[in-house]
Amino acid sequence: MKYYIGVDIGGTNLKAGVVNDRGEIISESSIPTGADRPQDVVLHDILKAVHNSIEGAGGVDPKDIRALGVGSPGMIDSETGTVIYNNNLGWRNFAIAPKMSEALNLPVRLENDADAAALGEVVSGSAKGASSAMIITLGTGVGSGYVVDGKIYRGCEFGHMVISYGGRECTCGRHGCFEAYASATGLINMTKEAIRDNPDGILAGIAAKEGTVSGHTVFVAGEEGDTVALKVIDEYTGYLACGLVNIINGLHPEVISIGGGIGKQGERLLVPLRGKINAEVYGEVKESPAKIVSCTLGYKAGLIGAAMSVRDI
Amino acid sequence: MKYYIGVDIGGTNLKAGVVNDRGEIISESSIPTGADRPQDVVLHDILKAVHNSIEGAGGVDPKDIRALGVGSPGMIDSETGTVIYNNNLGWRNFAIAPKMSEALNLPVRLENDADAAALGEVVSGSAKGASSAMIITLGTGVGSGYVVDGKIYRGCEFGHMVISYGGRECTCGRHGCFEAYASATGLINMTKEAIRDNPDGILAGIAAKEGTVSGHTVFVAGEEGDTVALKVIDEYTGYLACGLVNIINGLHPEVISIGGGIGKQGERLLVPLRGKINAEVYGEVKESPAKIVSCTLGYKAGLIGAAMSVRDI
Repeated sequence: MKYYIGVDIGGTNLKAGVVNDRGEIISESSIPTGADRPQDVVLHDILKAVHNSIEGAGGVDPKDIRALGVGSPGMIDSETGTVIYNNNLGWRNFAIAPKMSEALNLPVRLENDADAAALGEVVSGSAKGASSAMIITLGTGVGSGYVVDGKIYRGCEFGHMVISYGGRECTCGRHGCFEAYASATGLINMTKEAIRDNPDGILAGIAAKEGTVSGHTVFVAGEEGDTVALKVIDEYTGYLACGLVNIINGLHPEVISIGGGIGKQGERLLVPLRGKINAEVYGEVKESPAKIVSCTLGYKAGLIGAAMSVRDI
Repeated sequence: MKYYIGVDIGGTNLKAGVVNDRGEIISESSIPTGADRPQDVVLHDILKAVHNSIEGAGGVDPKDIRALGVGSPGMIDSETGTVIYNNNLGWRNFAIAPKMSEALNLPVRLENDADAAALGEVVSGSAKGASSAMIITLGTGVGSGYVVDGKIYRGCEFGHMVISYGGRECTCGRHGCFEAYASATGLINMTKEAIRDNPDGILAGIAAKEGTVSGHTVFVAGEEGDTVALKVIDEYTGYLACGLVNIINGLHPEVISIGGGIGKQGERLLVPLRGKINAEVYGEVKESPAKIVSCTLGYKAGLIGAAMSVRDI
């Protein structure tokens, strides 16, 4: 059996895992990122997590570990294995892959973390076996990762696709980006607005009870039949469907998997979403040619995908 | 030398050409389509054009012709070589590739005509040698064809990407599609509106002299410094840039080639367009990572690309 190591560099934790060639995690290790530390100090902890994961993989002969894949947020250059910039970690032009390769005496490849997670979902998650799959992560922003014929299509970035020309301001400086509408942040803003307009309603009551407004709040109120919440869900899924139909028409992925905090809503998100997508897809079809599902691997997708990205080495 | 035949099924003419493996047309033949005739009668004329092109390719030994590629408009199934539907020609479930293959005793493959034209531009036109290129055709509608690593990415369709949620009605039934804004039709509508609002201006005068409003009219008036025309060009290139930046951010093509009637405007379109794109692309860059150029092959792109699509046979 061949084994690969996957590393996921998160804003909160550094994770490393030994993964077999079927995409199963044999052992994993996690260390707090400590994002405010110098990059070489963080690198030291990444290597520690890697060693921990190897030690944890009892039955695995280290000689059978063929290569290591790293998934990193931010702008990266996979050719040189360099993180060009990462605002959360304060990294600039950090040649992480060559440094790790030298320290571990293994081939190391760097991928974008959303790309790696997408590959994970295709190898052993929600899009297992799909010839092409787009993974859309709905969190603070909207991430996208595209996998075609088992390979990462690098740098796919549909979060900053404008769907509403001259519309809501986006953190990127443009107006009307998909992210400004379809992210958890976008949904939370819409929920807060609905609460302001209906301060005595069920939605407002649930938010008061929870003490905060999250991407979850509106779905809880919707299940209680609150019309204000249902209207927010309707509007939100309209925007989300719009961006997804653009991707379906444009690229014809076999599967679209929805991840991130909002993806966890499962069928209460997917049922209204599929209805809107089916009504909008292009051509003489009554139903979306792409299967719309939820991601299933959670944080493991990034580890598995990073490891699987070096299977061809 | 190996040779291939390319066939382009247009609404007006059926074209066939013998093409060498460098993408150079050796001979070509054209026959009016006669779109209102039964599909088998049209097929007969397609075969006639193919035979004419072979006869015209004097020095080419027919034994050296390896395969034939057909580019067809409408919805197609490349796997079975069937045109599923084509509204202009009235075709429904027409298994054109198997029929041509039997008649000619050659392997025959069917591609979408926009896809074939995109491959032509990559093999020997505006995007020659590009590792990835998106060809955007601005005519009655907005067509798109994507070529990655020398191969067609089938069925890429960004004309019906919504860029303005709830915006202008599109012929497809959705609202706010890129096509409704960036097609020649969209530009002509905007030009007519500007003329209605400014009936005594330079733009109105040029339209009156030409006797009609075309996608060309506003650029002629713009060159004379007409502020009304310049405003239309500014608005139009804003929409066009929006859709192209979505594609650049989403897929990172190395080259975007603009074809169709509007593509012929060359630098008077491209100069304002590039300015807008550079201002909008995502990330810490000052300039579009994609080269923005005009298509150079005209109708020949479809013939060359169809022929080159069967190079691997």
